[in-house]
Formats: sequence, structure tokens, C-alpha cells
Amino acid sequence: MECKKNAPIGVFDSGVGGLTVVREITRQLPEENIVYFGDTARVPYGSKSKENIIRFSEQIIRFLLTKEVKAIVIACNTASALALDAVRDEFDVPLLGVVVPGARAAVEATHNGKIGVIGTDATVHSHVYTKEIQKMKSDVTVQEKACPLFVPLVEEGFKDHAVTGEIIDHYLSSMRGSEIDTMILGCTHYPLLRSRIRTYMGDNIQIVNPAYETAMDLKKILKEQDMENPQTSQGHCEFYVSDAAEKFKSFANSVMPFDIESTRVIQIEEY
Amino acid sequence: MECKKNAPIGVFDSGVGGLTVVREITRQLPEENIVYFGDTARVPYGSKSKENIIRFSEQIIRFLLTKEVKAIVIACNTASALALDAVRDEFDVPLLGVVVPGARAAVEATHNGKIGVIGTDATVHSHVYTKEIQKMKSDVTVQEKACPLFVPLVEEGFKDHAVTGEIIDHYLSSMRGSEIDTMILGCTHYPLLRSRIRTYMGDNIQIVNPAYETAMDLKKILKEQDMENPQTSQGHCEFYVSDAAEKFKSFANSVMPFDIESTRVIQIEEY
Repeated sequence: MECKKNAPIGVFDSGVGGLTVVREITRQLPEENIVYFGDTARVPYGSKSKENIIRFSEQIIRFLLTKEVKAIVIACNTASALALDAVRDEFDVPLLGVVVPGARAAVEATHNGKIGVIGTDATVHSHVYTKEIQKMKSDVTVQEKACPLFVPLVEEGFKDHAVTGEIIDHYLSSMRGSEIDTMILGCTHYPLLRSRIRTYMGDNIQIVNPAYETAMDLKKILKEQDMENPQTSQGHCEFYVSDAAEKFKSFANSVMPFDIESTRVIQIEEY
Repeated sequence: MECKKNAPIGVFDSGVGGLTVVREITRQLPEENIVYFGDTARVPYGSKSKENIIRFSEQIIRFLLTKEVKAIVIACNTASALALDAVRDEFDVPLLGVVVPGARAAVEATHNGKIGVIGTDATVHSHVYTKEIQKMKSDVTVQEKACPLFVPLVEEGFKDHAVTGEIIDHYLSSMRGSEIDTMILGCTHYPLLRSRIRTYMGDNIQIVNPAYETAMDLKKILKEQDMENPQTSQGHCEFYVSDAAEKFKSFANSVMPFDIESTRVIQIEEY
């Protein structure tokens, strides 16, 4: 099994957002190798149907399996929400989403049992966070809000622009006026707006980034299954996308703590 | 050839934007039947590569040909800019983009020879409007500006929101301060922001919507090739998308002057 221990972790997302999860995995599991796939030809997922998100996820998992990954992290909240249950039994590899770890972290964090969740249209309309949270603790109330403009604002470099503050106000004013004490950033792009959201929501709200808990869960699964990479040197990351490799690379270099040397384009529809 | 005269016009776009072109065709050619395809599974095109936009366009044209269309209008500026030249010789059907008609209208409209073009990243970086305009009149100067947030703002219903004014200011302030007297709305979504852009730019700027000229060109081609539909009753429109038919339908019903009864989802990758 030595070979399998050295095998990479597969991580995928609709685009660049999942890099916030990769960032967390490389921090907590620096010795692991990673193969990342960003579906930049079909981004965004948040406005698309369950059927297509399942089909896209199956293609990507089949691609990652050609890289002999030992586990796969669905770093996209939308795909975790809409596809994980549907594809779990199809593939013989541990599959991990970001929703359950995020829900658990929020349940542990809340004092008053009132949690807010923000995400894409698809994630919010699936109510998957509410379902997972109430499975863990039935008396917690959950308020959900779709913030579909946050992704293009991040992707188009408006992170620090004044209008982003107004759009945050547009989406989050009702949540700020509510009694929630914990908020889940239910989209992998949103940690890139964390400080803006923090400033707007105030210091009394605990902000949960599911990426952190997901990396913790991954660590636990690898340990339980005795699949941790025994190497002590820094793991290697490979990046694949379905389109526009250069744009991805330049965005990735602004998010990741190390330089990304190359990104390869593949035809994901062929998998 | 009677059969061909009754055949529909194929119109396609990355999503809902092309409906502004359909609206114009049904106004100028009310007797023509239309088959529309919106690539809602892969929208937006504006941030994607030339290779993929050509591939997507080929699949869509093959699909439209199964509907025995007598002509095809590429209602998407990005696909017109990046794919039309590449696919023109591949298919035995008149293919018409929105760029050449838009460029011609602007050349005819300008008095001082200074034209502004706004569009997606892909359209602007292709410089196709500049090339076409300068082919028609070499001494015209063209200023181009990508406005990538306009599409999500329209799609997410922020058309009348205050932040849209600020984002218009962010993108267009340099153009407003320049000497242009004519501006091309080089993306099919932008006519939906026309009154906001008009208010911002002032009444001295002529705003060109390529949809109008494209419908005029289509009319001319049909006449020249003796392919006008001889029926005198209102033509029929069929709508196809690659995803999320309900969302498309509700958006379409807010744009079109008639109600859309049904929208069918097809697997465009199979064509």
C-alpha cells in the first residue's frame, strides 16, 4: 500500500474558489500531494441544475481517478450540496464534501442556536446546510441567503471596491439585523471576501469557513485508513482546468501561498 | 424550395442575452419562425477561450441544423467575435454574426470618427470591432472597454439597483471623459442596461445596438436569396437551452413581448 500512501489527494471546484480549500489542505497536510481540477469552461455552477452538476462531477471524478488519487475533496459547495450523495456509491474512493464539515463547525460554534448560511442560488435552494445542521442538532434554526453576485465580484477583482460593500449590504442586511451568532461562508469564493463580511457583520458573529474543517476531516480520514503520506518534504500540487489556463494561473497565484508553475487544460467532457 | 422558405431561422447565444436579438428579429420579420438555443449550461462565454467558444459554437450549429434552419444568427458578440470566421466555411447555411452589422451602424452614425465599444473580456480582447470598423473606414479611432460585471448584474436582477450606476461609472468614466460620439453595446445583455448607460453617458452620445442592424441584415439576406417566409401570420418561436429551462423561461418572459410557453433542455455536448 506504500504506493497508495504517496498517491495524491484530488480536489475539484467549478473554478478558482476551491483554491481556498487547497490552501487549507496544504497548511494542515503539507506533506500531501494534490491534483486540482477547476471546471473553468463551465463555471459558475451556482446557477445550474442538479442534473448537470451531477454529470459534471462524475466527469471530474473520473478524470481525477486517472491520476490515481487516494481521496477526493469536492471543494465546491454547490457540487457538495447537489452531487455528493448521488455520486458517493458510484466510485471506489473516499469522497468528502465541504457541507458536512462546515455544518458541524457551525453547530459547535453557535451559543444561541441561530446560524446563518450564505451561498450560491443552487446551494441555498437545496437547503442542504439546514438539513445537515438539523440532523446534528434539531433545535438549531438556520437562516439562508443566496448571494449570487459575490462570485463575479471576486472573479472580476472587485474585492476591495466600494460597490462590494453595497452589495454585501443588499444581501446581508436582514441577516445582520437578525439574532444569528454564527455564519457559514457556504461558497468557496466567499473566504476571499471574509474581511469585508467580517467588517459588515461585526465582531459578535462567528464566521465559519468550511475549508478549515474539511481539511481537518480529510486528515482524520487519511489517519483512520492509514493512508497518510509518510514523506516529510512539501507535497507537490498539479493544476488542471477545462479552459483559460493563464487566467486561472494568475488568479491562483494571488490566492495561494506559493507560485503555481503550470496549469494544464484538459477536455473534461471526454471523461 | 417552398419548404425552405418556411424553415425557421436559428438564433443562438451563450444564455438569455440573445433574446434581445430575437426581439428585434420578430419585430422586423414577424412572419419568420425562429429556433433559439441558449447555452445556459456553459454561460458565460465572455471569460472563456477561443478554442472552447469555437467548439461550443460548432455543437450548437450542428444542433440547429437538425431543426433544418434556413439561416443562423450568432446572437452572441463573443461567439461572433471568436468563432464566426472559424466556422463559416464548415457549414452549408448562411451564418450571420452581430459584430459586422454593429460595426457598420457605428461607422454610419459617427460624425467625428471616434467610436467607443463595450463588451465582454473575450470580445474586447479580440479587438474584432476595431478591426471591422477600420476595415470599413480606416481613419476612425476606436476605444474599447470590457465590462464583465454587466452580465451578472443583468442576470441577477440588479438592472435598476444603485450599485449598477456605480459599476457603470467604474467602467465607463474614461469613455464619458473622451471624445467619442458613438458607442456600440457589444454584448447582447447590454441593451437591457441601455437606459442606465444612456443616462450616464448623456444625450450627445449615439448608442448603437447591433441587434437592430443584424435583423436588417438578416432581412436583406433572406430577400436576396429569395428565402423569405411567404406566410402572413405571426411566426412561431421554439426555445431550447442546455440547462435550467425554468429560470430561462422566466427571464425570457420579462424580455420578450410575448409569452414563452415552453423551453426544452437538450444535451448540447452530444452534437
